[in-house]
Amino acid sequence: MSTRFWEATAGRAFAGRLATGSDLVEEIERYCAEQGITAAQVTVVGAVRRACYAYYEQHDRRYRELESREHHEIAGFVGNVSLRDDRPFLHAHATFADAAGATVGGHLLRGTEVFAAEVMIRELGGVSLVRLHDEETGLTLW
Amino acid sequence: MSTRFWEATAGRAFAGRLATGSDLVEEIERYCAEQGITAAQVTVVGAVRRACYAYYEQHDRRYRELESREHHEIAGFVGNVSLRDDRPFLHAHATFADAAGATVGGHLLRGTEVFAAEVMIRELGGVSLVRLHDEETGLTLW
Amino acid sequence: MSTRFWEATAGRAFAGRLATGSDLVEEIERYCAEQGITAAQVTVVGAVRRACYAYYEQHDRRYRELESREHHEIAGFVGNVSLRDDRPFLHAHATFADAAGATVGGHLLRGTEVFAAEVMIRELGGVSLVRLHDEETGLTLW
Repeated sequence: MSTRFWEATAGRAFAGRLATGSDLVEEIERYCAEQGITAAQVTVVGAVRRACYAYYEQHDRRYRELESREHHEIAGFVGNVSLRDDRPFLHAHATFADAAGATVGGHLLRGTEVFAAEVMIRELGGVSLVRLHDEETGLTLW
Repeated sequence: MSTRFWEATAGRAFAGRLATGSDLVEEIERYCAEQGITAAQVTVVGAVRRACYAYYEQHDRRYRELESREHHEIAGFVGNVSLRDDRPFLHAHATFADAAGATVGGHLLRGTEVFAAEVMIRELGGVSLVRLHDEETGLTLW
Repeated sequence: MSTRFWEATAGRAFAGRLATGSDLVEEIERYCAEQGITAAQVTVVGAVRRACYAYYEQHDRRYRELESREHHEIAGFVGNVSLRDDRPFLHAHATFADAAGATVGGHLLRGTEVFAAEVMIRELGGVSLVRLHDEETGLTLW
Protein backbone atom coordinates (compact mmCIF):
# COMPACT_ATOMS: atom_id res chain seq x y z
CA MET A 1 0.00 0.00 0.00
CA SER A 2 1.25 3.48 -0.72
CA THR A 3 1.74 6.23 1.84
CA ARG A 4 -1.57 7.75 2.94
CA PHE A 5 -2.30 10.59 5.33
CA TRP A 6 -5.51 12.05 6.73
CA GLU A 7 -5.90 15.52 8.17
CA ALA A 8 -7.64 15.55 11.52
CA THR A 9 -9.11 18.16 13.81
CA ALA A 10 -7.93 18.58 17.38
CA GLY A 11 -10.24 16.47 19.51
CA ARG A 12 -10.63 16.16 23.25
CA ALA A 13 -7.74 15.72 25.67
CA PHE A 14 -7.74 13.45 28.69
CA ALA A 15 -5.32 12.83 31.54
CA GLY A 16 -5.72 9.90 33.88
CA ARG A 17 -4.17 7.29 36.06
CA LEU A 18 -4.83 3.60 35.91
CA ALA A 19 -5.64 1.35 38.85
CA THR A 20 -2.75 -0.69 40.24
CA GLY A 21 -3.22 -4.27 39.06
CA SER A 22 -5.20 -3.36 35.95
CA ASP A 23 -4.24 -4.49 32.44
CA LEU A 24 -2.45 -1.61 30.71
CA VAL A 25 -3.91 -2.25 27.25
CA GLU A 26 -7.42 -3.25 28.30
CA GLU A 27 -7.84 -0.39 30.74
CA ILE A 28 -6.97 2.23 28.12
CA GLU A 29 -9.23 0.56 25.56
CA ARG A 30 -12.05 0.32 28.08
CA TYR A 31 -11.82 4.04 28.83
CA CYS A 32 -11.73 4.92 25.12
CA ALA A 33 -14.82 2.76 24.49
CA GLU A 34 -16.62 4.45 27.39
CA GLN A 35 -15.79 7.92 26.03
CA GLY A 36 -16.29 7.13 22.37
CA ILE A 37 -12.65 7.83 21.51
CA THR A 38 -11.93 6.17 18.17
CA ALA A 39 -8.78 7.99 17.01
CA ALA A 40 -6.11 9.31 19.36
CA GLN A 41 -2.50 9.54 20.40
CA VAL A 42 -1.64 7.91 23.72
CA THR A 43 1.37 8.28 26.01
CA VAL A 44 2.07 6.64 29.34
CA VAL A 45 4.53 7.44 32.14
CA GLY A 46 4.61 4.58 34.61
CA ALA A 47 5.78 1.22 35.80
CA VAL A 48 4.53 -2.33 35.43
CA ARG A 49 4.56 -5.53 37.46
CA ARG A 50 4.79 -7.70 34.39
CA ALA A 51 5.66 -6.76 30.81
CA CYS A 52 4.08 -8.61 27.87
CA TYR A 53 5.25 -7.60 24.44
CA ALA A 54 5.91 -9.04 21.02
CA TYR A 55 8.12 -9.01 18.00
CA TYR A 56 6.54 -9.41 14.59
CA GLU A 57 8.31 -11.98 12.44
CA GLN A 58 8.17 -10.08 9.15
CA HIS A 59 8.89 -13.16 7.04
CA ASP A 60 6.74 -15.66 8.94
CA ARG A 61 4.02 -13.07 9.49
CA ARG A 62 3.35 -13.95 13.08
CA TYR A 63 3.99 -12.34 16.44
CA ARG A 64 6.58 -13.91 18.73
CA GLU A 65 5.33 -13.25 22.25
CA LEU A 66 7.76 -12.25 24.99
CA GLU A 67 7.19 -11.77 28.68
CA SER A 68 9.10 -10.52 31.64
CA ARG A 69 7.67 -11.07 35.11
CA GLU A 70 10.09 -8.60 36.65
CA HIS A 71 8.96 -5.16 37.65
CA HIS A 72 9.88 -2.56 35.06
CA GLU A 73 9.80 1.17 34.52
CA ILE A 74 8.21 2.16 31.19
CA ALA A 75 11.21 3.93 29.62
CA GLY A 76 9.62 4.67 26.26
CA PHE A 77 6.07 4.57 24.90
CA VAL A 78 4.36 5.42 21.61
CA GLY A 79 0.73 4.58 21.02
CA ASN A 80 -2.35 5.28 18.99
CA VAL A 81 -6.02 4.41 19.13
CA SER A 82 -8.03 3.40 16.07
CA LEU A 83 -10.98 1.15 15.30
CA ARG A 84 -10.62 -2.60 14.98
CA ASP A 85 -13.74 -4.71 14.66
CA ASP A 86 -15.75 -1.57 15.52
CA ARG A 87 -14.03 -1.10 18.87
CA PRO A 88 -11.28 1.25 20.06
CA PHE A 89 -7.99 -0.61 19.70
CA LEU A 90 -4.71 0.50 21.30
CA HIS A 91 -1.64 -0.04 19.15
CA ALA A 92 1.37 0.76 21.29
CA HIS A 93 5.07 -0.05 21.43
CA ALA A 94 7.05 0.29 24.63
CA THR A 95 10.49 0.06 26.17
CA PHE A 96 10.81 -1.43 29.66
CA ALA A 97 13.72 -0.89 32.07
CA ASP A 98 14.69 -3.24 34.91
CA ALA A 99 16.42 -2.64 38.26
CA ALA A 100 19.82 -2.30 36.59
CA GLY A 101 18.44 0.08 33.95
CA ALA A 102 18.67 -2.61 31.24
CA THR A 103 15.96 -2.32 28.61
CA VAL A 104 13.80 -4.58 26.48
CA GLY A 105 10.87 -3.64 24.29
CA GLY A 106 8.46 -4.30 21.48
CA HIS A 107 4.80 -4.34 20.54
CA LEU A 108 2.76 -3.99 23.74
CA LEU A 109 0.47 -6.92 24.56
CA ARG A 110 -2.45 -7.57 26.84
CA GLY A 111 -1.22 -9.10 30.08
CA THR A 112 1.03 -6.13 30.92
CA GLU A 113 0.05 -5.38 34.52
CA VAL A 114 0.00 -1.80 35.79
CA PHE A 115 1.87 -0.80 38.92
CA ALA A 116 1.34 2.91 38.28
CA ALA A 117 0.44 4.53 34.95
CA GLU A 118 -0.19 8.18 34.14
CA VAL A 119 -1.91 8.29 30.77
CA MET A 120 -2.52 11.15 28.38
CA ILE A 121 -4.89 10.75 25.45
CA ARG A 122 -5.11 13.31 22.65
CA GLU A 123 -8.09 12.61 20.46
CA LEU A 124 -8.01 13.22 16.71
CA GLY A 125 -11.34 14.41 15.39
CA GLY A 126 -12.81 14.18 11.92
CA VAL A 127 -10.95 11.05 10.87
CA SER A 128 -11.89 7.42 10.73
CA LEU A 129 -8.90 5.17 11.34
CA VAL A 130 -10.17 1.66 10.66
CA ARG A 131 -7.86 -1.36 10.82
CA LEU A 132 -8.09 -3.80 7.94
CA HIS A 133 -5.95 -6.71 6.86
CA ASP A 134 -2.95 -5.59 4.82
CA GLU A 135 -1.78 -8.15 2.24
CA GLU A 136 1.76 -6.85 1.99
CA THR A 137 2.68 -7.12 5.67
CA GLY A 138 0.12 -9.55 7.06
CA LEU A 139 -0.77 -6.91 9.66
CA THR A 140 -4.03 -5.19 10.44
CA LEU A 141 -3.34 -1.57 9.58
CA TRP A 142 -5.25 1.68 9.12
CA MET B 1 -6.97 3.62 43.87
CA SER B 2 -9.27 3.01 40.95
CA THR B 3 -8.75 4.29 37.43
CA ARG B 4 -9.55 8.00 37.15
CA PHE B 5 -9.52 10.32 34.16
CA TRP B 6 -10.04 14.04 33.75
CA GLU B 7 -11.01 15.79 30.54
CA ALA B 8 -8.81 18.76 29.73
CA THR B 9 -8.92 21.61 27.26
CA ALA B 10 -6.11 22.22 24.80
CA GLY B 11 -3.76 24.69 26.46
CA ARG B 12 -0.76 26.56 25.17
CA ALA B 13 2.06 24.96 23.17
CA PHE B 14 5.73 25.75 23.56
CA ALA B 15 8.87 24.71 21.69
CA GLY B 16 12.30 25.41 23.10
CA ARG B 17 15.87 24.39 23.46
CA LEU B 18 17.78 24.08 26.69
CA ALA B 19 21.18 25.54 27.46
CA THR B 20 24.14 23.16 27.18
CA GLY B 21 25.19 22.25 30.71
CA SER B 22 21.80 22.86 32.28
CA ASP B 23 19.94 20.25 34.34
CA LEU B 24 17.33 18.60 32.13
CA VAL B 25 14.67 18.24 34.84
CA GLU B 26 15.25 21.53 36.63
CA GLU B 27 15.39 23.60 33.45
CA ILE B 28 12.03 22.30 32.24
CA GLU B 29 10.47 22.79 35.68
CA ARG B 30 11.92 26.29 35.91
CA TYR B 31 10.39 27.26 32.57
CA CYS B 32 7.02 25.78 33.54
CA ALA B 33 7.06 27.73 36.82
CA GLU B 34 7.91 30.91 34.95
CA GLN B 35 5.02 30.40 32.51
CA GLY B 36 2.52 29.08 35.04
CA ILE B 37 2.29 25.69 33.32
CA THR B 38 0.82 23.24 35.85
CA ALA B 39 -0.41 20.41 33.61
CA ALA B 40 1.26 19.38 30.37
CA GLN B 41 2.80 16.73 28.18
CA VAL B 42 6.52 17.04 27.54
CA THR B 43 8.79 15.47 24.94
CA VAL B 44 12.50 15.91 24.39
CA VAL B 45 14.78 15.14 21.44
CA GLY B 46 18.38 15.49 22.50
CA ALA B 47 21.55 14.22 24.09
CA VAL B 48 23.04 14.36 27.57
CA ARG B 49 26.49 14.48 29.11
CA ARG B 50 25.43 12.48 32.12
CA ALA B 51 22.29 10.39 32.65
CA CYS B 52 20.71 10.09 36.09
CA TYR B 53 17.72 7.82 36.40
CA ALA B 54 16.06 5.45 38.81
CA TYR B 55 14.19 2.21 39.23
CA TYR B 56 11.40 2.06 41.77
CA GLU B 57 11.63 -1.01 44.01
CA GLN B 58 7.94 -1.86 44.08
CA HIS B 59 8.26 -4.11 47.16
CA ASP B 60 10.70 -1.98 49.15
CA ARG B 61 8.97 1.24 48.03
CA ARG B 62 12.13 3.16 47.36
CA TYR B 63 13.98 4.41 44.30
CA ARG B 64 17.26 2.78 43.37
CA GLU B 65 19.33 5.53 41.77
CA LEU B 66 21.44 4.81 38.71
CA GLU B 67 23.90 7.00 36.89
CA SER B 68 25.93 6.88 33.74
CA ARG B 69 28.61 9.48 33.19
CA GLU B 70 28.94 8.61 29.54
CA HIS B 71 27.44 10.79 26.87
CA HIS B 72 24.13 9.45 25.63
CA GLU B 73 21.53 10.14 23.01
CA ILE B 74 17.98 10.33 24.44
CA ALA B 75 16.42 7.43 22.49
CA GLY B 76 13.00 7.55 24.14
CA PHE B 77 11.17 10.04 26.34
CA VAL B 78 7.72 10.30 27.90
CA GLY B 79 6.92 13.04 30.37
CA ASN B 80 4.20 15.03 32.07
CA VAL B 81 3.97 18.10 34.25
CA SER B 82 1.71 18.31 37.29
CA LEU B 83 1.74 20.05 40.66
CA ARG B 84 3.75 18.74 43.58
CA ASP B 85 3.99 20.87 46.72
CA ASP B 86 2.38 23.70 44.72
CA ARG B 87 5.12 23.74 42.09
CA PRO B 88 5.31 22.38 38.53
CA PHE B 89 6.89 18.93 38.75
CA LEU B 90 8.24 17.01 35.76
CA HIS B 91 7.61 13.28 35.84
CA ALA B 92 9.51 11.74 32.97
CA HIS B 93 10.95 8.40 31.96
CA ALA B 94 13.69 8.11 29.38
CA THR B 95 15.82 5.69 27.39
CA PHE B 96 19.48 6.61 26.82
CA ALA B 97 21.71 5.20 24.05
CA ASP B 98 25.52 5.04 24.18
CA ALA B 99 28.18 5.11 21.45
CA ALA B 100 27.47 1.50 20.50
CA GLY B 101 23.72 2.08 20.43
CA ALA B 102 23.24 0.13 23.69
CA THR B 103 20.39 1.44 25.81
CA VAL B 104 19.52 1.90 29.47
CA GLY B 105 16.62 3.73 31.01
CA GLY B 106 14.24 4.47 33.82
CA HIS B 107 12.69 7.28 35.84
CA LEU B 108 14.49 10.52 34.97
CA LEU B 109 16.32 12.20 37.86
CA ARG B 110 17.79 15.60 38.57
CA GLY B 111 21.48 15.57 37.73
CA THR B 112 20.93 14.64 34.08
CA GLU B 113 23.05 17.19 32.26
CA VAL B 114 21.95 18.59 28.92
CA PHE B 115 24.24 18.53 25.90
CA ALA B 116 21.45 19.55 23.53
CA ALA B 117 17.72 19.28 24.16
CA GLU B 118 14.81 20.30 21.95
CA VAL B 119 11.73 20.38 24.15
CA MET B 120 8.05 20.55 23.26
CA ILE B 121 5.46 21.26 25.93
CA ARG B 122 1.73 20.83 25.30
CA GLU B 123 -0.25 22.33 28.13
CA LEU B 124 -3.52 20.78 29.33
CA GLY B 125 -6.01 23.41 30.45
CA GLY B 126 -8.93 23.14 32.83
CA VAL B 127 -7.48 20.35 34.94
CA SER B 128 -5.70 20.30 38.24
CA LEU B 129 -3.21 17.44 38.44
CA VAL B 130 -1.98 17.47 42.04
CA ARG B 131 0.44 14.85 43.34
CA LEU B 132 -0.44 13.25 46.66
CA HIS B 133 0.91 10.26 48.52
CA ASP B 134 -0.64 7.02 47.29
CA GLU B 135 -0.87 4.30 49.97
CA GLU B 136 -1.02 1.40 47.56
CA THR B 137 2.22 2.12 45.70
CA GLY B 138 4.13 4.39 48.05
CA LEU B 139 4.41 6.87 45.18
CA THR B 140 3.26 10.46 44.87
CA LEU B 141 0.64 10.32 42.13
CA TRP B 142 -2.07 12.51 40.63
CA MET C 1 23.49 29.41 23.95
CA SER C 2 21.02 30.01 26.75
CA THR C 3 17.65 28.33 27.12
CA ARG C 4 15.07 29.73 24.70
CA PHE C 5 11.41 28.94 24.26
CA TRP C 6 8.80 30.05 21.77
CA GLU C 7 5.05 29.93 22.27
CA ALA C 8 3.19 28.34 19.39
CA THR C 9 -0.41 28.00 18.33
CA ALA C 10 -2.03 24.62 17.78
CA GLY C 11 -1.61 23.83 14.12
CA ARG C 12 -3.02 21.09 11.97
CA ALA C 13 -3.00 17.40 12.92
CA PHE C 14 -2.30 14.53 10.56
CA ALA C 15 -2.41 10.75 10.88
CA GLY C 16 -0.93 8.52 8.25
CA ARG C 17 0.77 5.31 7.34
CA LEU C 18 3.91 4.97 5.28
CA ALA C 19 4.44 2.65 2.35
CA THR C 20 6.31 -0.58 3.08
CA GLY C 21 9.83 -0.20 1.72
CA SER C 22 9.90 3.59 1.99
CA ASP C 23 12.60 5.51 3.85
CA LEU C 24 11.23 6.47 7.28
CA VAL C 25 12.93 9.88 7.45
CA GLU C 26 12.53 10.87 3.81
CA GLU C 27 8.90 9.86 3.61
CA ILE C 28 7.92 11.99 6.60
CA GLU C 29 9.95 14.93 5.29
CA ARG C 30 8.43 14.55 1.84
CA TYR C 31 4.91 14.68 3.28
CA CYS C 32 5.74 17.71 5.42
CA ALA C 33 7.17 19.52 2.38
CA GLU C 34 4.04 18.68 0.38
CA GLN C 35 1.78 20.05 3.14
CA GLY C 36 3.95 23.02 4.08
CA ILE C 37 4.52 21.72 7.61
CA THR C 38 7.57 23.53 8.98
CA ALA C 39 7.21 23.02 12.74
CA ALA C 40 5.67 19.93 14.31
CA GLN C 41 5.88 17.06 16.75
CA VAL C 42 6.06 13.60 15.20
CA THR C 43 5.48 10.14 16.66
CA VAL C 44 5.65 6.76 14.98
CA VAL C 45 4.34 3.33 15.96
CA GLY C 46 5.80 0.70 13.67
CA ALA C 47 8.50 -1.66 12.58
CA VAL C 48 11.48 -1.44 10.24
CA ARG C 49 13.40 -3.78 7.97
CA ARG C 50 16.67 -1.99 8.61
CA ALA C 51 17.57 0.50 11.34
CA CYS C 52 20.07 3.30 10.66
CA TYR C 53 20.93 5.53 13.58
CA ALA C 54 23.81 7.48 15.02
CA TYR C 55 25.58 8.57 18.16
CA TYR C 56 27.00 12.06 18.31
CA GLU C 57 30.58 12.15 19.57
CA GLN C 58 30.27 15.21 21.77
CA HIS C 59 34.05 15.75 22.00
CA ASP C 60 34.93 14.94 18.38
CA ARG C 61 31.79 16.69 17.11
CA ARG C 62 30.89 14.09 14.58
CA TYR C 63 28.19 11.44 14.21
CA ARG C 64 29.22 7.79 14.51
CA GLU C 65 26.84 5.92 12.22
CA LEU C 66 25.36 2.59 13.29
CA GLU C 67 23.24 0.16 11.37
CA SER C 68 21.32 -3.00 12.02
CA ARG C 69 19.99 -5.00 9.10
CA GLU C 70 17.73 -7.05 11.34
CA HIS C 71 14.04 -6.39 11.48
CA HIS C 72 13.08 -4.32 14.50
CA GLU C 73 10.04 -3.01 16.27
CA ILE C 74 10.23 0.73 16.98
CA ALA C 75 10.03 0.62 20.80
CA GLY C 76 10.45 4.34 21.42
CA PHE C 77 10.29 7.44 19.23
CA VAL C 78 10.55 11.19 19.78
CA GLY C 79 10.68 13.58 16.86
CA ASN C 80 10.23 17.12 15.68
CA VAL C 81 10.07 18.94 12.38
CA SER C 82 11.79 22.27 11.79
CA LEU C 83 13.39 24.09 8.87
CA ARG C 84 16.89 23.29 7.70
CA ASP C 85 18.15 24.90 4.50
CA ASP C 86 14.57 26.09 3.90
CA ARG C 87 13.15 22.58 3.91
CA PRO C 88 11.20 20.56 6.51
CA PHE C 89 13.75 18.52 8.44
CA LEU C 90 12.87 15.60 10.73
CA HIS C 91 14.97 15.37 13.88
CA ALA C 92 14.07 12.13 15.59
CA HIS C 93 15.58 9.68 18.05
CA ALA C 94 14.37 6.11 18.28
CA THR C 95 14.72 2.85 20.17
CA PHE C 96 14.60 -0.39 18.17
CA ALA C 97 13.78 -3.86 19.57
CA ASP C 98 14.85 -7.17 18.02
CA ALA C 99 13.32 -10.66 18.08
CA ALA C 100 14.51 -11.25 21.65
CA GLY C 101 13.23 -7.85 22.81
CA ALA C 102 16.80 -6.48 23.05
CA THR C 103 17.03 -2.78 22.28
CA VAL C 104 19.41 -0.36 20.61
CA GLY C 105 18.86 3.27 19.74
CA GLY C 106 20.07 6.71 18.85
CA HIS C 107 19.64 9.57 16.40
CA LEU C 108 17.50 8.35 13.51
CA LEU C 109 19.18 8.37 10.09
CA ARG C 110 18.11 8.15 6.49
CA GLY C 111 18.32 4.56 5.32
CA THR C 112 15.90 3.27 7.96
CA GLU C 113 13.50 1.20 5.88
CA VAL C 114 9.81 1.04 6.79
CA PHE C 115 8.02 -2.27 7.22
CA ALA C 116 4.94 -0.62 8.72
CA ALA C 117 4.72 2.87 10.23
CA GLU C 118 1.73 4.69 11.68
CA VAL C 119 2.67 8.33 11.92
CA MET C 120 1.04 11.20 13.77
CA ILE C 121 2.09 14.79 13.09
CA ARG C 122 0.99 17.68 15.31
CA GLU C 123 1.86 20.97 13.69
CA LEU C 124 2.94 23.98 15.74
CA GLY C 125 1.69 27.23 14.25
CA GLY C 126 3.04 30.73 14.60
CA VAL C 127 6.64 29.77 15.18
CA SER C 128 9.65 29.61 12.96
CA LEU C 129 12.06 26.88 14.04
CA VAL C 130 15.11 27.34 11.85
CA ARG C 131 18.22 25.20 12.26
CA LEU C 132 21.53 27.03 12.38
CA HIS C 133 25.03 25.98 13.28
CA ASP C 134 25.62 26.08 17.04
CA GLU C 135 29.21 26.82 18.03
CA GLU C 136 29.02 25.26 21.47
CA THR C 137 27.89 21.78 20.37
CA GLY C 138 28.85 21.65 16.69
CA LEU C 139 25.22 20.74 15.96
CA THR C 140 22.62 22.41 13.78
CA LEU C 141 19.97 23.49 16.27
CA TRP C 142 16.89 25.70 16.40
